[in-house]
Amino acid sequence: MRKLLTMVAAFAAMTASAQFGVPRENPTVPSVVAEVEDFKPATTNQGGKQYPMVNSQRMVRAQISAPKATFVGLDIAGKIYEMTKDENGVWTGTSAPQDEGFHYYQLNIDGASVPDPGSKYYYGASRWGSGIDIPAADESFYTVKNVPQGSINEVYYWSTVQEKMRHGYIYLPNEYYTNPTKKFPVLYLQHGMGENETGWSAQGKTGIIMDNLIAEGKAVPFIIFMDNGLDTRRPGDPDPAEMRRPGFGSPRAGGPQGQRPDGPRPGGPRPGGFGNFFEAFQQILLTDIIPMVEKNYRVIADTEHRAMAGLSMGGMQTRGITLANPTTFAYVGMFSGGTFSVDDLKDAADFKKTNKVLFMSAGGKETRMAEGDGSVGKAAENLKALGFNAHSYVSPETAHEWQTWRRSLHEFAQLIFK
Amino acid sequence: MRKLLTMVAAFAAMTASAQFGVPRENPTVPSVVAEVEDFKPATTNQGGKQYPMVNSQRMVRAQISAPKATFVGLDIAGKIYEMTKDENGVWTGTSAPQDEGFHYYQLNIDGASVPDPGSKYYYGASRWGSGIDIPAADESFYTVKNVPQGSINEVYYWSTVQEKMRHGYIYLPNEYYTNPTKKFPVLYLQHGMGENETGWSAQGKTGIIMDNLIAEGKAVPFIIFMDNGLDTRRPGDPDPAEMRRPGFGSPRAGGPQGQRPDGPRPGGPRPGGFGNFFEAFQQILLTDIIPMVEKNYRVIADTEHRAMAGLSMGGMQTRGITLANPTTFAYVGMFSGGTFSVDDLKDAADFKKTNKVLFMSAGGKETRMAEGDGSVGKAAENLKALGFNAHSYVSPETAHEWQTWRRSLHEFAQLIFK
Repeated sequence: MRKLLTMVAAFAAMTASAQFGVPRENPTVPSVVAEVEDFKPATTNQGGKQYPMVNSQRMVRAQISAPKATFVGLDIAGKIYEMTKDENGVWTGTSAPQDEGFHYYQLNIDGASVPDPGSKYYYGASRWGSGIDIPAADESFYTVKNVPQGSINEVYYWSTVQEKMRHGYIYLPNEYYTNPTKKFPVLYLQHGMGENETGWSAQGKTGIIMDNLIAEGKAVPFIIFMDNGLDTRRPGDPDPAEMRRPGFGSPRAGGPQGQRPDGPRPGGPRPGGFGNFFEAFQQILLTDIIPMVEKNYRVIADTEHRAMAGLSMGGMQTRGITLANPTTFAYVGMFSGGTFSVDDLKDAADFKKTNKVLFMSAGGKETRMAEGDGSVGKAAENLKALGFNAHSYVSPETAHEWQTWRRSLHEFAQLIFK
Repeated sequence: MRKLLTMVAAFAAMTASAQFGVPRENPTVPSVVAEVEDFKPATTNQGGKQYPMVNSQRMVRAQISAPKATFVGLDIAGKIYEMTKDENGVWTGTSAPQDEGFHYYQLNIDGASVPDPGSKYYYGASRWGSGIDIPAADESFYTVKNVPQGSINEVYYWSTVQEKMRHGYIYLPNEYYTNPTKKFPVLYLQHGMGENETGWSAQGKTGIIMDNLIAEGKAVPFIIFMDNGLDTRRPGDPDPAEMRRPGFGSPRAGGPQGQRPDGPRPGGPRPGGFGNFFEAFQQILLTDIIPMVEKNYRVIADTEHRAMAGLSMGGMQTRGITLANPTTFAYVGMFSGGTFSVDDLKDAADFKKTNKVLFMSAGGKETRMAEGDGSVGKAAENLKALGFNAHSYVSPETAHEWQTWRRSLHEFAQLIFK
């Protein structure tokens, strides 16, 4: 458990540090690259809104009217870009080039961090706020097309563990509707730290990716259930607000990616902390979610037709839950969530007998997971030598962000239930 | 058509004028009622966020950190309430008492109108932005309960009229899943001006209202399709940005609710304007939406099992479309959308033969529709005399807002398909 806590804290820090500029530590920066004036409204804008825009260099240009403000900044990818005011009180500013794909961002108006009124809003970095999609060379795989459509359905259900109604989303493939007697396999798919059950369908574009893959014959039709892996407080558990105390998950002296020094936490493990996220979510998944899905939907309710995957913290949850329940899931995926090691699996006879695909991925800019001895590629190689059907994938030129995870799902979905 | 345009413009003005303070015309106001200090976080807050809060007097208290700002205001129900700064740069302010139910609001920071980072976001007033639910005495009917759950499903489909993929939501009752051979009636349910296809499920709480009504045996299970009645531009139609030019739909000299003087618009009817919203949406509904729903879902595809209703502009669309297609829908509802008149229906033999329920509602504070000769009650009385099964409903103490429409759906759903 100590190792798990340490790794999860590292991912939390990575996620948090990747998000927003902190003025005290990261002074505002000017845009230094010459800008090509071919800016177009972002696809993630609210209907009819011109800003934010993106140009062919993948720079983001934001604009807002704030006549009485003395400072307005565009806060994206850990930096705040100063914006400038025109004679009408309209502020405009442009970022450096961004990676392809989806990024959270916000505006800073005289010290207030607020959503940009031009963008649509997404849940991440522990808040609903602005997001922007930077066009990508491979965006076709997550673009809505006129192919047979499944649907993302909003689901409320009773949790016996938490004694309350919970909320999740289920993807049902087109054939669920057109072939009313057929039963389907199910993937349980989890989000990362600071995100919630909306992430995979909104930022992740799960339904669109699956509809396109199934239409091309590249994936078999299966159901996906997406739940909230951080909503895990049980009656009697301590208040999770404790988890949000200042400094939690923030970079420490442990290294460049902000991991904590290995060892006991000051004061020891905190009840209701990451142990809660792991153990309580495991209990909710096995007691409430899977039985509910298998009761309410036409599901092939056996191990060979059950998969679990997740991104970042959701990948850690996947690793922990599948190791602790080795005969429950035949297909396992960790996206930017670290790796399964030879130590994890060399004596795991039940896991090995059960597992049909073990998939590990990372963004190419997540160097510790993408390159070298700790990489997903090296881990897959080691696990193949143990006899596993292990796969790895590195998303070109992306970091710990949604483009990595869209691509990871796109790869993983083609491997499972076949 | 001139009457339709005039009425729709009036509703647009009502909706627009109900929303946000305009500093030039509505100077900021202090809160003058003594505040009872029993404020609690709003149910519409983002997870873990303490502000905004609501007290037992239904006052809203907002708070935001903006250390360098010189003015911060809470902009709700057409007024801006000045907030005050503490020694840490945190601004706090409180509104006058608000009506029960849902309201759009925003913050103003040094002249910038932005969403409150504490609230969840909703689409209305032509933007994604903050919303707040004020507790209501009757909120049980739209509260999630442990009853058999249907689901709200996101649907993409091809529009032959627009030659693009469209986006809507479908409510499927619990029995759609548990009784896999049963076919169901369908209600086509439309939002108002400045809103979109998300309004009825998010602010309107359609799925929750229906699940509760069906569980209590007060409504029969039926399907609801919710689409975007403003996304109506066809190939060759003019740019709808024209509709958003300054001054459109804003209050004029015509009267206290800002309706336009009757008569031709300056320059005549504008192509792509309200005529587009009516005629193009009619075409999309009849050509694309209804055939898609009847093809893809288990639907009883006849007039007796087809209903249309809408709020405000959606009510006007309902009135226009059902009058123009008198044998298509057996059940018709207008919520805060005006009335059917005796002139409309006295010679409408096909409509009369087809119609089984004609429902008209308004908020009690929408005085022109709630009281007197122009009221929904008077209209229902007149139509009953013509032989119609006409019903009216007035929502106590609510205005042109979602609490009126939640209650209207709750009433209408109990009358139809029986």
